[in-house]
Amino acid sequence: MKIAVVEYQSSVQVGIVEESQVFLLPQDISSSIEAIIHKGDRFVENILERKSTYESVSLSQVRLKAPLQNPEKIIGIGLNYKDHCREQNVPVPEYPLVFAKFSSSIIGNGDAICWNTELTRQVDFEVELGVIIGKKARNVSTQEALEYVFGYTIINDVSARDLQFRDRQWVRAKSLDTFCPMGPWIVTADEIPDPQALHLSTELNGVKMQNSSTAEMVFSVAELISFLSQAFTLQPGDIIATGTPDGVGVFRKPPVFLQNGDSLRMEIEKIGVLENTCKIIR
Amino acid sequence: MKIAVVEYQSSVQVGIVEESQVFLLPQDISSSIEAIIHKGDRFVENILERKSTYESVSLSQVRLKAPLQNPEKIIGIGLNYKDHCREQNVPVPEYPLVFAKFSSSIIGNGDAICWNTELTRQVDFEVELGVIIGKKARNVSTQEALEYVFGYTIINDVSARDLQFRDRQWVRAKSLDTFCPMGPWIVTADEIPDPQALHLSTELNGVKMQNSSTAEMVFSVAELISFLSQAFTLQPGDIIATGTPDGVGVFRKPPVFLQNGDSLRMEIEKIGVLENTCKIIR
Repeated sequence: MKIAVVEYQSSVQVGIVEESQVFLLPQDISSSIEAIIHKGDRFVENILERKSTYESVSLSQVRLKAPLQNPEKIIGIGLNYKDHCREQNVPVPEYPLVFAKFSSSIIGNGDAICWNTELTRQVDFEVELGVIIGKKARNVSTQEALEYVFGYTIINDVSARDLQFRDRQWVRAKSLDTFCPMGPWIVTADEIPDPQALHLSTELNGVKMQNSSTAEMVFSVAELISFLSQAFTLQPGDIIATGTPDGVGVFRKPPVFLQNGDSLRMEIEKIGVLENTCKIIR
Repeated sequence: MKIAVVEYQSSVQVGIVEESQVFLLPQDISSSIEAIIHKGDRFVENILERKSTYESVSLSQVRLKAPLQNPEKIIGIGLNYKDHCREQNVPVPEYPLVFAKFSSSIIGNGDAICWNTELTRQVDFEVELGVIIGKKARNVSTQEALEYVFGYTIINDVSARDLQFRDRQWVRAKSLDTFCPMGPWIVTADEIPDPQALHLSTELNGVKMQNSSTAEMVFSVAELISFLSQAFTLQPGDIIATGTPDGVGVFRKPPVFLQNGDSLRMEIEKIGVLENTCKIIR
């Protein structure tokens, strides 16, 4: 199931997306995906079973919003693609490199990535498989880890490279407002039995910039969940941004940074396409 | 006003603490400080005005809980005390060093700081002034910054030094479950007109380990709020852990790390005392 948050006739609703149709959940069932995740698997199955009773509209009539607005955690993983390590000439890490993005940076499909050039002039893109946790997870094994996944989405881990390299701690550079485009929706885990076999790509103004596969990950989704759950409790709705493959702007020769008016198109197999524009606000 | 979250006769309630008494807000007014902050200044004044109509119990009859359970952000600031920079022989930073703690690490006064020795053997304490944001803040000036403060609390920025130095990104080392003791309550901003003149200290098993003043901060609370608000939107209930003074365990000769059964007592002038014990869980 593709589950989305949509704005339709000025009301924000959860919708089930099928081809070019959206089935709108009545507000009294739920108005957020967070709430649905917290209600558990059986509730999710129920929603799908009752689909035919919901109002259905065309996908073109709705505006997609970020599927999650306020997760407890957005956990970023650095240097998690072999090809991305090669392009920087660094060895693959021995264990996952963890950082955070603040949830105030979340925007949805179609929203603009905005920045102030007094703060940063080196804004870069990173396509990433986003993993949405479905159940509280603490000390889970790699073998059972995928059972804790609610679904998958696309995340653009937008990064202010000048701030990132100067600060050394990455949180600020990766948490500027609008620096976490996410969507267009969440695909539930049953539709992606193997998250390590997904093609993913970025096009900048129509030119392919990133083009890889989640098979290139250093640590698999299951390994990441297990590793993280040894340190802290993963909560329903938590998001793991699992790292980006090669092709980002900063390591190109010459480097490519995002400009006012640029358009980004990120695609992950079996999930969909996330599109955003870029806007300098001062 | 000292505002707390307390457990009394198996129910969790917000309380106003005065000397050794707690005035319990009826659940229909509010059961969380987050909700009160979101309702704004006038609501807070109303609560205080109606105090005499609330049930009052002795402080010794209640169990204090963490005043905030799930803030959107816990923003950590590194190297923000001149004396703490001197003890490490590093220059004071030119701008605030930002990191994050995940809110799943929050515990309250009296709760145990727990860790697994397979994960870390170098657990350290850091007393910090915690600033609670009261109103949405974006691009605010230093001059107006303190108007955005709801209140202040004590935070122990517990840190797994082995993970912190190995990971380089600090988020994991500072976000293990139970690694953010906070409390015992929040003191509203009107009672602390000058947050740069507060004595703060740590005692480990009765021995003074940290003993300084917020006057030693490199960047003042107002400067931090202004700086952070240039990067991202501060939300009501967000917490800034403003950095720790000298005397932490890791820079002592020989280093001192927390042990099973240790007790910590942190005090900040005009706020109170935060006490926690230490427990190795494997």
